[in-house]
Amino acid sequence: MKIFEEIESEVQSYARSFPRIFNKAVGEFLYDEDGVEYLDFLAGAGTLNYGHNNPVFKEKLLQYIHDDGITHGLDLHTKAKEEFLNTFNEKILKPRNLDYVLQFTGPTGTNAVEAALKLARNVTGRENIIAFTNGFHGVSLGALAATGNSHHRGAAGVSLNGVSRMPFDGYLGEDIDTIAYLDKVLTDSSSGIDLPAAVIVETVQGEGGINAASLGWLKDLQATCKKHDVLLIVDDIQAGCGRTGTYFSFEEAGLYPDIVTLSKSLGGYGLPFAMVLIRPEIDQWKPGEHNGTFRGNSFAFVTAKAAIDTYWSDDTFSKEIKRKGEYVSKRLEAIIDQYGEGNFSTRGRGMFQGINCINSDLAGKITHKAFQKNMIIETSGADDQVVKFLCPLIISDANLKKGIDIVEQAIKEVCAKEDSIPEEKDYFATTA
Amino acid sequence: MKIFEEIESEVQSYARSFPRIFNKAVGEFLYDEDGVEYLDFLAGAGTLNYGHNNPVFKEKLLQYIHDDGITHGLDLHTKAKEEFLNTFNEKILKPRNLDYVLQFTGPTGTNAVEAALKLARNVTGRENIIAFTNGFHGVSLGALAATGNSHHRGAAGVSLNGVSRMPFDGYLGEDIDTIAYLDKVLTDSSSGIDLPAAVIVETVQGEGGINAASLGWLKDLQATCKKHDVLLIVDDIQAGCGRTGTYFSFEEAGLYPDIVTLSKSLGGYGLPFAMVLIRPEIDQWKPGEHNGTFRGNSFAFVTAKAAIDTYWSDDTFSKEIKRKGEYVSKRLEAIIDQYGEGNFSTRGRGMFQGINCINSDLAGKITHKAFQKNMIIETSGADDQVVKFLCPLIISDANLKKGIDIVEQAIKEVCAKEDSIPEEKDYFATTA
Amino acid sequence: MKIFEEIESEVQSYARSFPRIFNKAVGEFLYDEDGVEYLDFLAGAGTLNYGHNNPVFKEKLLQYIHDDGITHGLDLHTKAKEEFLNTFNEKILKPRNLDYVLQFTGPTGTNAVEAALKLARNVTGRENIIAFTNGFHGVSLGALAATGNSHHRGAAGVSLNGVSRMPFDGYLGEDIDTIAYLDKVLTDSSSGIDLPAAVIVETVQGEGGINAASLGWLKDLQATCKKHDVLLIVDDIQAGCGRTGTYFSFEEAGLYPDIVTLSKSLGGYGLPFAMVLIRPEIDQWKPGEHNGTFRGNSFAFVTAKAAIDTYWSDDTFSKEIKRKGEYVSKRLEAIIDQYGEGNFSTRGRGMFQGINCINSDLAGKITHKAFQKNMIIETSGADDQVVKFLCPLIISDANLKKGIDIVEQAIKEVCAKEDSIPEEKDYFATTA
Amino acid sequence: MKIFEEIESEVQSYARSFPRIFNKAVGEFLYDEDGVEYLDFLAGAGTLNYGHNNPVFKEKLLQYIHDDGITHGLDLHTKAKEEFLNTFNEKILKPRNLDYVLQFTGPTGTNAVEAALKLARNVTGRENIIAFTNGFHGVSLGALAATGNSHHRGAAGVSLNGVSRMPFDGYLGEDIDTIAYLDKVLTDSSSGIDLPAAVIVETVQGEGGINAASLGWLKDLQATCKKHDVLLIVDDIQAGCGRTGTYFSFEEAGLYPDIVTLSKSLGGYGLPFAMVLIRPEIDQWKPGEHNGTFRGNSFAFVTAKAAIDTYWSDDTFSKEIKRKGEYVSKRLEAIIDQYGEGNFSTRGRGMFQGINCINSDLAGKITHKAFQKNMIIETSGADDQVVKFLCPLIISDANLKKGIDIVEQAIKEVCAKEDSIPEEKDYFATTA
Repeated sequence: MKIFEEIESEVQSYARSFPRIFNKAVGEFLYDEDGVEYLDFLAGAGTLNYGHNNPVFKEKLLQYIHDDGITHGLDLHTKAKEEFLNTFNEKILKPRNLDYVLQFTGPTGTNAVEAALKLARNVTGRENIIAFTNGFHGVSLGALAATGNSHHRGAAGVSLNGVSRMPFDGYLGEDIDTIAYLDKVLTDSSSGIDLPAAVIVETVQGEGGINAASLGWLKDLQATCKKHDVLLIVDDIQAGCGRTGTYFSFEEAGLYPDIVTLSKSLGGYGLPFAMVLIRPEIDQWKPGEHNGTFRGNSFAFVTAKAAIDTYWSDDTFSKEIKRKGEYVSKRLEAIIDQYGEGNFSTRGRGMFQGINCINSDLAGKITHKAFQKNMIIETSGADDQVVKFLCPLIISDANLKKGIDIVEQAIKEVCAKEDSIPEEKDYFATTA
Repeated sequence: MKIFEEIESEVQSYARSFPRIFNKAVGEFLYDEDGVEYLDFLAGAGTLNYGHNNPVFKEKLLQYIHDDGITHGLDLHTKAKEEFLNTFNEKILKPRNLDYVLQFTGPTGTNAVEAALKLARNVTGRENIIAFTNGFHGVSLGALAATGNSHHRGAAGVSLNGVSRMPFDGYLGEDIDTIAYLDKVLTDSSSGIDLPAAVIVETVQGEGGINAASLGWLKDLQATCKKHDVLLIVDDIQAGCGRTGTYFSFEEAGLYPDIVTLSKSLGGYGLPFAMVLIRPEIDQWKPGEHNGTFRGNSFAFVTAKAAIDTYWSDDTFSKEIKRKGEYVSKRLEAIIDQYGEGNFSTRGRGMFQGINCINSDLAGKITHKAFQKNMIIETSGADDQVVKFLCPLIISDANLKKGIDIVEQAIKEVCAKEDSIPEEKDYFATTA
Repeated sequence: MKIFEEIESEVQSYARSFPRIFNKAVGEFLYDEDGVEYLDFLAGAGTLNYGHNNPVFKEKLLQYIHDDGITHGLDLHTKAKEEFLNTFNEKILKPRNLDYVLQFTGPTGTNAVEAALKLARNVTGRENIIAFTNGFHGVSLGALAATGNSHHRGAAGVSLNGVSRMPFDGYLGEDIDTIAYLDKVLTDSSSGIDLPAAVIVETVQGEGGINAASLGWLKDLQATCKKHDVLLIVDDIQAGCGRTGTYFSFEEAGLYPDIVTLSKSLGGYGLPFAMVLIRPEIDQWKPGEHNGTFRGNSFAFVTAKAAIDTYWSDDTFSKEIKRKGEYVSKRLEAIIDQYGEGNFSTRGRGMFQGINCINSDLAGKITHKAFQKNMIIETSGADDQVVKFLCPLIISDANLKKGIDIVEQAIKEVCAKEDSIPEEKDYFATTA
Repeated sequence: MKIFEEIESEVQSYARSFPRIFNKAVGEFLYDEDGVEYLDFLAGAGTLNYGHNNPVFKEKLLQYIHDDGITHGLDLHTKAKEEFLNTFNEKILKPRNLDYVLQFTGPTGTNAVEAALKLARNVTGRENIIAFTNGFHGVSLGALAATGNSHHRGAAGVSLNGVSRMPFDGYLGEDIDTIAYLDKVLTDSSSGIDLPAAVIVETVQGEGGINAASLGWLKDLQATCKKHDVLLIVDDIQAGCGRTGTYFSFEEAGLYPDIVTLSKSLGGYGLPFAMVLIRPEIDQWKPGEHNGTFRGNSFAFVTAKAAIDTYWSDDTFSKEIKRKGEYVSKRLEAIIDQYGEGNFSTRGRGMFQGINCINSDLAGKITHKAFQKNMIIETSGADDQVVKFLCPLIISDANLKKGIDIVEQAIKEVCAKEDSIPEEKDYFATTA
């Protein structure tokens, strides 16, 4: 470990929670340099929906490299890109009746968000963006302004401007319709919320604590955007690519967003990759306005195409995810019924679920204990109070069960030592 | 080409200059789908210093993938990262007496710049950053504020704040010391330039038009930063990794910057990769403050290590670059002596050189004609007025000669058709 | 009128509603150049609480000018300032147990707000300010960022940063406690609302539509600020100086704000004047940090002192205001019972009341008709939908009755011509 | 003094330099409460060009107040405003062939600047403003961004955006044409200086250290603005109203700026007043977009008209100022010849002159000693290194001589005690 301590920056994060040197990975497993196997319920923070080093994609990638396919091609047309475009068009867009053009930005989610925000501002000529409480959209300065987390915001060193914040679904308690509030501030010319270029939303907030918006809320959001001539950007970087049970997380709600950002599992193999989907009429970019040396990662074109061909040629995979998601729901419900003194709650949708332990100490102890049992699982939420189940979608039933069993055991052990589990504060109790 | 027109965004840039579908690449050559060979003097905009698909790195990469080495590891410790860290420390930092810790940001240059600016602002508690005329540092919002190009700035859709602009070396004419101006505004409490957190500089401005700062100017810049307790950030994304003849472009000037950003050719094989070098005493990051899904691209750890092992274990490669650089200088000098009616000029350092054709039409015609001769070469500068020679550093002498021959021929043909070559405007003629 | 059309800017506003040339004014009356008398229920937008050219203050002012008292004294100590300070201290601060130091800014409300925001930011080292929906705090850039009105905001020409917007009392419907929402976003480290330096609030929003916060809400606001170590700024520019029945509008709620801004009726005679009250421990200004040529208007020191001596030496005046305020309430209630088809509503506190006519056309017709009856009265609110009763506090009972009679008659006439009165939209109807 | 210490804010500034309680003022004299007479070479920081309590204006004002003329009229048409408009049009604008409309903003310079910047940004649709090193334009947030002084900027508590800084005439040494630099950055699309809405400039920088731009530089500035379609704003708040010898300070250079801001001596009697002059074609304000309770101070309409009638009906006064200005020049030249070891220098134009003592300690000692001799005179400049002669323009020859005599004596006494006078640093010595 010496070299990491010596010359890797203090900014290290996950390495602190899981202090091993990892060497190999396959499917839902990571292996450290001593060959110890770890069941991975973190999955690259949502990047490994198809597991580590998926063997089908691996073959395609090896062949491509072997053949001296283009590795770095700026934004030149390449055979690899052409094939990806065709596949994405035929197997993802057309079957869903979604008409989009594709922009390949620098291969990170935050870069895709930067591009989406720029485009929305340019097309509308407005500066303001509406983002939601607990939203996470990246840490480069444009995206960071839309991100809610104060730990990340505080690192900016400058003020983060151009974004107004509105409460996400449920933020003001179950009875309060936060879209009505949004509609009111957009209608009221003296609200102080400048008419925005766009609203940016995650259908399920990953880093924010696995907060899933209801389908009705999402529909209302789209309708309110349309009513006020405001663009709707769905940031599907973490929730997309099958995580909730459909390719896009907004399919169940029947949305057709103006702009969609994708990254993380888009490349399939864990390779850096990001894309912005744009309704053709708002693709008003001038050549090269948003650029970047690594826009369009060629290797990822190859593996992304393989992922779509393998998993999204029909609805088998989608059904599998939903089936597993229901299993996860059932198990998590049972866990919170048994532990947490009635104060724990479940949250999420599809295979994007978590348990809110109210308290970050508790959640941290649980994931720490799971790690002692050779499992990698992390927390999320403002206070890291949510244990986040983010295993590869291709996980075997046995390993899915095993993983949840481990967490359940960890919860049991942790709760046994606690005097009492804190209750969630209800801010709106006396008035609603 | 149909699919590109149909569903790739209008933001496309290089694909417009070189409208072919490329399929394969080796060394200094690209091949289109019809097997036509193109001599590459663009080299991934400086990303392919070691050529396309360098066979040594390729073997290492194929082996790593075959062995199921970690592909996506967030910022976990991995064997691949460990080996890269050791190699970079032993072969790059130690021999140069440079004491740095390394931060792996999202694998793009702009992301490294975002991190560098954040860190400088946080450490100093100041917001202002000084950047230079014609500087280019990326297009995400934080980096874009430091970038000079109005085409990119205009796409922001919001005002770009927190950066003050100062004239680069030579911007006010040869006789005016722009560091004296910088020193004065930092000394003058009423200059209106707030004391900055840092100055960010490219030693040779690539996108800005191959403007090479003199070594004296660079030394004075560092001294002035020290005098005013301002951090010095060298953005070595394009000029670093050997391009000017040494690993870091600031070695000749004997600088020891507080922060250095690297990307482009750092990964060696053209894979997305970026890194920030930080003097240990200012590595004041809190865990995870700047994060990103793809920080630390594992494949690039492998190829970056291979690149260093292969080319930077001794000074052979450095000498080779300098030798070729001198050849380029000589040839370009000869070309401007013969063409351009005395109005063309050369610029740059090492293998980072160009010809200023004053006029973008002219420069564009030249690169277009070169493409007709199966060569890929691009322009840079505010008005795309500079023909930029950016071939792989590993190019054979024969192909280097051949490339310059092609451009010379293109210039000859283009100039033959022009009535007259415009002169550069001398703003300071009457007063200096 | 020719000269006004010829060379006064298009920015003219009130002059469009009341197109006369005025020449003279006394008490609650204005006179045009033809000697026509107008009953003034606008009162300098709240600047003439003591009426036009109050004879007591007039004598003091004439004497001061006659004696060559200092007219312009920068921020030098003057006899006039000394006497004002003593009077304000003895008759306003001490009897109310309020411990403040006084800052004289440029003699406008917006300048006082600029100073208040700067100070709050400097003292806390934070940038964010929380302001409320429909708030109005001035139009210079710092204050404008806190102002909600899009007509004014749109004129900035730059983005207005550094302010987060929260819903005022009642904005989310009667049942929703907007302070609970404020408390939640300040508690939630991932809310995206950066911990603010201060909250700025009007107890009754004048320009925003005569929205009076409940005393409970104000108390809760102060408690929430204290809980999160956030400063509370009461902008009492329009609601202060007796308008609501007490000298400060926050007295009834028992607040002790950290900072208070005063202007408008503070000078007494309608002269430009503004002041910031600061809790001594946060008076961390360095000499001259916030300056201005006309800070501390000497004539206004004289008339402001006279106003306090005359009206605030005991509680007689306060009782009078409350008595008249109750009369206004009763009359307005009766009017909305009779007109508006049940859709009109009253709003406000003390002699700061209005009738919400829902619709700006309607409200505009009413004030226009009143002007035809030689009365000056204006609208306010996001859509100018509220008829605003803002007569001098010293108005005679007879003229108060007469003014309300005129408006009642105007409403009667206007409503007679309308087919139907619109209902206010209830955004939260279906969910609360 | 007790009450000032007790309850006036620490922000006090001039009161610290001149710790007396003043009570009366006439012409070029102030009197403290003990009747001690002080010769005033500060003149309200340029507000009292016509002296304290000018008897002609005083009579007009007393009559107006006596007759119950409108004191506070918002922006209603009034007789007083009408008469001012006519007078300003006939006696100031027409004789100079200047076609402007007039906007009355809140009665402070900073407010006029805020309005000017907003208008320029709105009319052009651009955000950037170019301001100069050492410029001073006020301390409300919009104006403060254009102000150079770090003492004032530091108090903002937020970043000051939307302004790019360029070097004023002479800032880079005598030989360097800073307008050529401006022209270059506006021409160069990659300069990083966004095309501005406007350039704002003082022809003589008062607070910045009495830096007078040459007439050639001013002409070139106007031509460069025109060339790039950028508006020119002359901030004539301190240099205007006769201070340099003509009504507007830009008359000698033959400028016709797009926007002019006036305040300070505009009102004549020291009353708060401010105005923006706008070329008719850019008067694109919508009604009420920029407002303010005290816009158009009625008393000041009366005294401003009196000032114009009395002093600007012919060119007598202008000639007088020039004559006195030449006397000041001659005297100051003689003083620097005799004292300061060759390191002092004079600066300024008309009756707007100063002596640069290089060092703030020295300058402070000089003004302090002058105060001991019953004279009020202040310093200016980034380091308060300039002794600023800013007496009323109407000063008698005898008192002008007397004032300069006092300062000369003070300099003599101070210099006698100094070991050596510092030299000004020449930043550009070795290179220009």
